[in-house]
Amino acid sequence: MSLRRYRLIISCPDRVGIVAAVSGFLSRHGGSITEASQHSDVSTGWFFMRYEIDADRLPFEMDGFRQAFAPIAEAFAMHWQITDTQVPRRVVPLVSKLDHCLTDLLYRWRSGDLPMDIPCVISNHEDMRAYVEWHGIPYHHIPVNPQDKAAAFARIAERVDEARADVVVLARYMQILPPDLCARYAGRVINIHHSFLPSFVGARPYHRAFERGVKLIGATCHYVTDQLDEGPIIEQDVIRVRHDDAVDDLVRLGRDVERAVLARGLRYHLEDRVLVHGNKTVVFD
Amino acid sequence: MSLRRYRLIISCPDRVGIVAAVSGFLSRHGGSITEASQHSDVSTGWFFMRYEIDADRLPFEMDGFRQAFAPIAEAFAMHWQITDTQVPRRVVPLVSKLDHCLTDLLYRWRSGDLPMDIPCVISNHEDMRAYVEWHGIPYHHIPVNPQDKAAAFARIAERVDEARADVVVLARYMQILPPDLCARYAGRVINIHHSFLPSFVGARPYHRAFERGVKLIGATCHYVTDQLDEGPIIEQDVIRVRHDDAVDDLVRLGRDVERAVLARGLRYHLEDRVLVHGNKTVVFD
Amino acid sequence: MSLRRYRLIISCPDRVGIVAAVSGFLSRHGGSITEASQHSDVSTGWFFMRYEIDADRLPFEMDGFRQAFAPIAEAFAMHWQITDTQVPRRVVPLVSKLDHCLTDLLYRWRSGDLPMDIPCVISNHEDMRAYVEWHGIPYHHIPVNPQDKAAAFARIAERVDEARADVVVLARYMQILPPDLCARYAGRVINIHHSFLPSFVGARPYHRAFERGVKLIGATCHYVTDQLDEGPIIEQDVIRVRHDDAVDDLVRLGRDVERAVLARGLRYHLEDRVLVHGNKTVVFD
Amino acid sequence: MSLRRYRLIISCPDRVGIVAAVSGFLSRHGGSITEASQHSDVSTGWFFMRYEIDADRLPFEMDGFRQAFAPIAEAFAMHWQITDTQVPRRVVPLVSKLDHCLTDLLYRWRSGDLPMDIPCVISNHEDMRAYVEWHGIPYHHIPVNPQDKAAAFARIAERVDEARADVVVLARYMQILPPDLCARYAGRVINIHHSFLPSFVGARPYHRAFERGVKLIGATCHYVTDQLDEGPIIEQDVIRVRHDDAVDDLVRLGRDVERAVLARGLRYHLEDRVLVHGNKTVVFD
Repeated sequence: MSLRRYRLIISCPDRVGIVAAVSGFLSRHGGSITEASQHSDVSTGWFFMRYEIDADRLPFEMDGFRQAFAPIAEAFAMHWQITDTQVPRRVVPLVSKLDHCLTDLLYRWRSGDLPMDIPCVISNHEDMRAYVEWHGIPYHHIPVNPQDKAAAFARIAERVDEARADVVVLARYMQILPPDLCARYAGRVINIHHSFLPSFVGARPYHRAFERGVKLIGATCHYVTDQLDEGPIIEQDVIRVRHDDAVDDLVRLGRDVERAVLARGLRYHLEDRVLVHGNKTVVFD
Repeated sequence: MSLRRYRLIISCPDRVGIVAAVSGFLSRHGGSITEASQHSDVSTGWFFMRYEIDADRLPFEMDGFRQAFAPIAEAFAMHWQITDTQVPRRVVPLVSKLDHCLTDLLYRWRSGDLPMDIPCVISNHEDMRAYVEWHGIPYHHIPVNPQDKAAAFARIAERVDEARADVVVLARYMQILPPDLCARYAGRVINIHHSFLPSFVGARPYHRAFERGVKLIGATCHYVTDQLDEGPIIEQDVIRVRHDDAVDDLVRLGRDVERAVLARGLRYHLEDRVLVHGNKTVVFD
Repeated sequence: MSLRRYRLIISCPDRVGIVAAVSGFLSRHGGSITEASQHSDVSTGWFFMRYEIDADRLPFEMDGFRQAFAPIAEAFAMHWQITDTQVPRRVVPLVSKLDHCLTDLLYRWRSGDLPMDIPCVISNHEDMRAYVEWHGIPYHHIPVNPQDKAAAFARIAERVDEARADVVVLARYMQILPPDLCARYAGRVINIHHSFLPSFVGARPYHRAFERGVKLIGATCHYVTDQLDEGPIIEQDVIRVRHDDAVDDLVRLGRDVERAVLARGLRYHLEDRVLVHGNKTVVFD
Repeated sequence: MSLRRYRLIISCPDRVGIVAAVSGFLSRHGGSITEASQHSDVSTGWFFMRYEIDADRLPFEMDGFRQAFAPIAEAFAMHWQITDTQVPRRVVPLVSKLDHCLTDLLYRWRSGDLPMDIPCVISNHEDMRAYVEWHGIPYHHIPVNPQDKAAAFARIAERVDEARADVVVLARYMQILPPDLCARYAGRVINIHHSFLPSFVGARPYHRAFERGVKLIGATCHYVTDQLDEGPIIEQDVIRVRHDDAVDDLVRLGRDVERAVLARGLRYHLEDRVLVHGNKTVVFD
């Protein structure tokens, strides 16, 4: 748990010798692989890999690793990334008035359940200020004026950058991120959608689930793109509902699924378990 | 288990006194209620009820019951129905080449797991004949000519009527029932759809689930109406899939969900646990 | 949701006429049954019933109801109880250092997710004081001296009585309640046990689950009796674990199941959905 | 699906260089790794690995592979095994009168869902003969005389050996295998137990689950050892039960879990996904 590890994430065209090259490199430097996952996507001919490596046994730090590994990465045309488990990611939640997801994230932060820092929380409402500030976390109230959303989102981007955020979490934020921010933070904005996508894309999914009479409702954690509710899915789950559950009950039951799915999806992301390829994800859970 | 029971199913506009009237009627005749379920739908003002009654303690048979109960039913404008647990329903499966749902139904019939008779099986292919006939069940091969589907469906209706079917089960039949048959057997045709509706309405749901990269796939058991895949949902369930599951794996995993969901949905129907209202169902499970 | 309702809970020897007598009584007084559940236990010959009744349509308050209903209750030898949905139950959590269950209960209290008041929190440690007091809830620190547990539990009982608690929740309290308190608060103390009982009765269930190599771990919400971990079970659930989950991971995954199972079990209790009979429960969920 | 692959399974003491050695060996011979799983057990210092390798790209057959790989295996003190996906395992089910697990296995065999051959079925009763023989599979009736069980088990062993069985499946066989057979077929006998072990070890688990009032029942697929119900667990699952489920209902609901858990556990075994270590399993699912 407290051991320092590097996480090496690779995706590249599949061919013979990738594993041998990477594991040979590590072996030559005395590196011990403590966790390994691989996937070859036959339909696209693409290869995906995630290694956890005992960092203390290697003769170099992150920069040294990057330099030494570069030739191999180049030879196989790898997209790759190395991270240090002792440097927690910086996560900035965006929230509105609904507090169940944020409450859960703060609990998981404070208890060490999720490996992250929360440099600040941003909201278009004041409702959560007291609770957030009790945790010693700065709270930025940035109202979103329907007539001038651009101004609000410019301020949000400023705050996100200032906080050096690695990840932005839309924790039931209820506002649509403009395309320029989607592009700017591509692969770094995670949303929790309150339906089992692609069912009930768009607004008021619980009402529509009630009207359709489905027997399960769900939630979806996905990366945000400029295609609303269409981004790569990280995690999903469902919960059973009954004929005597009114819309209010679906909303209540849904809260538990939403926060659970968001927490799992965010964990996968924070632990570098998610590799995006096209509009799909490889999740090494 | 072996006790003979009546099942009394009622739906009507909600008002004070329904339960008192029905239970009072039963009490006056010495009837013992062995299982009871009720639901008041606040949004539509409609009342739903299901009683199981110890049949041997009542002083009359089904016909006598119907006659004695009629005045109460009329007073409350009830839609109602009484059935006898010792008269198994007659279920006619329609199948194509995929055999997992039919195999499961035959197992549940033969083991007494589902309380039903299967007077015959109808298929547009010969594939399942030997297996069905081994069970001593007649097998009708009725090919569906794309140029003249009406003729085939006329023959099917003939066989269904001849078999005095209470229920028709589309056990992955792969053909769309024409509107006249949907109307003729309204509320008596049950389909198993290989997706978690309303996701992936229409054809090739597993392929589309694969392309969208969902993390759960599902199946839906519903009554057939002339609106394809839009009928009242009886039961649904899902199963988890991973990035390394190809379409073939989704199909394989889906088979287990399909047969489980169909079996549960059909059980609810056979035990008179499903009350349809509009395009939704009350399921007293 | 905001409608005022009475909940009538009955258990008694099964015989003809109970439902007729109760529903007839309600009908005569204009009472509308908005939710109804019944169960006849064939093996014990016992009958269980739960009604939700529109309180505003009845011509009397709780006391008047009790008086008017008493003759019927006597005639059928009923154990019975009536409660008012507008009078929230008073729940006193007992906690130790582990905070996940308490955090969840406080969230559900503050958001109105669970219908209850929390007059105070009692703990044998100071750890949770600041968090609890931020919610405006008094926090009583009552250390448990292993040499003189009786003194501590006497003080606890005092605080519980002072708070007029309807329910005591052992939210991972880590101390065993003495038999006299089990008796004094019989049917009113709810525990969350961190295993899928009866597996791993006793101490360190996650360690033993790890050693046994089970593929699912679970949690159990039950009423406390003087037989440790043997009280009537209200609710249980499980979560999947893998070979690469260490004991620490089981503890982490288990936290999510524990709080979910406790919340569901407590909800059933608060909504009068749990009827205890012998060492088992009827749960009208 | 139809590609021919080798599966290489390795367990050995963990140390630097294992992956590099194995993947380097494969790379040198042009071998492409199509699926890879690894696990380092920190508590025991043991390493586990499973590779699927494109067989057609290698310059040797199984025997050649074994010879070429032997030096590496020796250097790392590996327990290892290589199998060919085009050689299906030979599975011999032992059954009694309960037919749900066998029916499911036969369905999965006949549909190609499970990659196996079934050379024969052995039973202490005649009940399943007709059904098994319809599939063209020989059926051996070997009654077990309580006064002379040894004789029966000697005959069973004879039939198992004659059939060159790779795996013996106790598909609700209801007889306890004697210690000498447990030893003789160690790691090759799979049992399905009708409880969520370690709950309700021993006889009549559904009756005891009913008496204890649990809210979930389960099933466990495990390797058979001479310690009854104590062997390494491969797979488990549960299903929800309610207060109105009698023992008969638990038995009925349990059948669905039993056959599902057995099918999944057997699949893992047949696909070489299960590595036993001590009394636990690593399952690369």
